[in-house]
Amino acid sequence: MTDTATARRSRITPEREAELYRAVLDLLREVGYDALTMDAVAARTRSSKATLYRQWGGKAELVAKAMRFNKPGSISDIDTGTLRGDFHALVQREDDCVMEQNSALMRGLAMAVHGNPDLLKAFRELLVEPEMEEFRRVLRRAIDRGEVRADNPAIEYVVHMMLGAFATRTLLDELPPTQDFLTSYIDAVVLPALGA
Amino acid sequence: MTDTATARRSRITPEREAELYRAVLDLLREVGYDALTMDAVAARTRSSKATLYRQWGGKAELVAKAMRFNKPGSISDIDTGTLRGDFHALVQREDDCVMEQNSALMRGLAMAVHGNPDLLKAFRELLVEPEMEEFRRVLRRAIDRGEVRADNPAIEYVVHMMLGAFATRTLLDELPPTQDFLTSYIDAVVLPALGA
Repeated sequence: MTDTATARRSRITPEREAELYRAVLDLLREVGYDALTMDAVAARTRSSKATLYRQWGGKAELVAKAMRFNKPGSISDIDTGTLRGDFHALVQREDDCVMEQNSALMRGLAMAVHGNPDLLKAFRELLVEPEMEEFRRVLRRAIDRGEVRADNPAIEYVVHMMLGAFATRTLLDELPPTQDFLTSYIDAVVLPALGA
Repeated sequence: MTDTATARRSRITPEREAELYRAVLDLLREVGYDALTMDAVAARTRSSKATLYRQWGGKAELVAKAMRFNKPGSISDIDTGTLRGDFHALVQREDDCVMEQNSALMRGLAMAVHGNPDLLKAFRELLVEPEMEEFRRVLRRAIDRGEVRADNPAIEYVVHMMLGAFATRTLLDELPPTQDFLTSYIDAVVLPALGA
């Protein structure tokens, strides 16, 4: 974070920030990205639109930050000593109820992203890139431990595999993604593809 | 197809049916599923709404049938003698330009499916189930040839892997799914997970 950003950010307390993000997520679930307005966020959180714009720059950044706030901890905090343990722990951070809510939220946003270049940019910078970097760190440790070969071509597809299973579960099986489903997918697909 | 369905279907020529499906796909690309009306389809194709309803039952079935019409041939027509050959041939049925168009179309529909139980039902019955059955046939041949073990747990996730890669490519890499990408994903992920 730059000094300017820190200075801007310091005007708002962490509690207030969390309250704002929760309101944005509620609104997203209620009306979806396209119908969500900064006016509605301002009204719901009793803040001024000027403050919202000064603090976040715009709707896309505010929504991407709210989604990031919503994510449980960092993947790379997980360090169980094996890749299988790390992946399983990753799935267990969210219980099934939260996962189902997030699945609906992500579906709506993944759709909106394609018609909104600003949202795609914010989404990539604030959510996709940090997540991919964390996966890379988990995988680097597995390579260092000798569990995965550094030149295994599946390494660059780990996020496609994981996010793809999460995203297609509902359509293909009419069931929400759950911890059990993802754990079994990791054991059946992700680890064998990585040769781990 | 039941006798009744055949009788109903016979009132329309294959050329006319193809023309109708192409008009539905054009409209889908232009306005999306939710904004597409039977009135617009009737106007665009100079047919009566009564005919459309009699022939297809409703918007959901008409759209699912149009998507199915749009798919290149059947997967199980492919029989190269190896699972790798079959999967590669599968990817080569659509050139990159068609694949990119279909990717946008599928994205729109995958989203609409979640708010429209009729569309989900038609989509599953007319597109997902037949596609999964064809994958099962390709895999059964691979099992019979001894390429894949019958009890490999990745077998039930083959469509999740393939469709997941297709669906996440644009978001994760800001690139459309292409033949090269999917071929490389098949070699790096799908075949190793299947132990083939």
